[in-house]
Amino acid sequence: MVVKVYGPDYACPKRVIVCLIEKEIEFETVHVDGFKGEHKEAEYLKLQPFGLLPVIQDGDYILYESRAILRYYAEKYKNQGTDLLGKTIEERGLVEQWLEVEAHNFNPPVYNLVMNILVYPLVGLPSDPKVIEESKEKVGKVLDIYEERLSKTKYLAGDFFSLADLSHLPFGHYLLNSMGLENIVRERKHVSAWWDDISNRPSWKKVLELYKFPM
Amino acid sequence: MVVKVYGPDYACPKRVIVCLIEKEIEFETVHVDGFKGEHKEAEYLKLQPFGLLPVIQDGDYILYESRAILRYYAEKYKNQGTDLLGKTIEERGLVEQWLEVEAHNFNPPVYNLVMNILVYPLVGLPSDPKVIEESKEKVGKVLDIYEERLSKTKYLAGDFFSLADLSHLPFGHYLLNSMGLENIVRERKHVSAWWDDISNRPSWKKVLELYKFPM
Repeated sequence: MVVKVYGPDYACPKRVIVCLIEKEIEFETVHVDGFKGEHKEAEYLKLQPFGLLPVIQDGDYILYESRAILRYYAEKYKNQGTDLLGKTIEERGLVEQWLEVEAHNFNPPVYNLVMNILVYPLVGLPSDPKVIEESKEKVGKVLDIYEERLSKTKYLAGDFFSLADLSHLPFGHYLLNSMGLENIVRERKHVSAWWDDISNRPSWKKVLELYKFPM
Repeated sequence: MVVKVYGPDYACPKRVIVCLIEKEIEFETVHVDGFKGEHKEAEYLKLQPFGLLPVIQDGDYILYESRAILRYYAEKYKNQGTDLLGKTIEERGLVEQWLEVEAHNFNPPVYNLVMNILVYPLVGLPSDPKVIEESKEKVGKVLDIYEERLSKTKYLAGDFFSLADLSHLPFGHYLLNSMGLENIVRERKHVSAWWDDISNRPSWKKVLELYKFPM
């Protein structure tokens, strides 16, 4: 059964797609135009009642929330493609920890930067310079902790690439490529090397080749 | 090895403790006074570099982020105490989905209500009536979707109690008991019955008996 992924042009669905490529799982994509509000239309809300991207359809099985989808496929196909969960329950615990850190510490300020620097100007809404300054400061503090961690282990959860690293790719891409903020990463040696490592994986290059970012 | 849980008086550590009780895992607690800023002191930051509660110590193994700790113990002791992950990989996928919904849709507006209605007045900071109104509206919209879901299944991920339900207990407790906002739950029949079911579990009653909420 081919997995259908909705909304491949947007960041959170790309988190799912790069995982499917790492796991060598066949998929197809369904275009959803967020700027036209297609994710708020009745047909879409039947699949994802919160009106958010992404959602996947895998036969009769429907699942949303990108990081839940990552966990589902990483576990279901544990022995196919790249193992993204670690070898032991203790390693998986650390994958879960850093995946939560990505979701709760890294992503919110980077998301605020993306909205205020890229999205709002595009749709004619005002940006908030105070939010931009505070978010830059927050990202910097989070990456200070990453720098310390990555001086000891090659990847966030240990010396193995995992969901925790992978989950940073879509919003990390915005941070380094579209907002003029790459110094936040580049001035931290270990974070910079980690970013180069994970963003040069063939899976992520394939995502960038196949699906554009809208900004 | 007895698991040490830091900061049992606060909401996120209670999420961990109720899980440990469901899983019949022995634990002890270490008091951390958040109002005195003990979670920002050097000793604590060695365990949890972001300065957030909780963290657990299990022998040499240290883990933070409450929902990562839930997953770790639910998996490690899958066959001990209450099974909180579902029976199949598909059921676990839905547990993960609703656990993410709790973290990203339910918790942020309830957290904002707790801060603005309970915490800020206590520490002499101004509350923001606009944030309070917006947050109440957001929680209502999220619970509308819960109402629809819970009209079809007894619990969020299906007809089995799981981490997804359990994770709502600490901030759900604030919503129903300390802020005069219980109607947001009570006016939704299925959400109301679900809350009564999960909050009457002996594990949660035990948490309330053992550890106070600071507000």
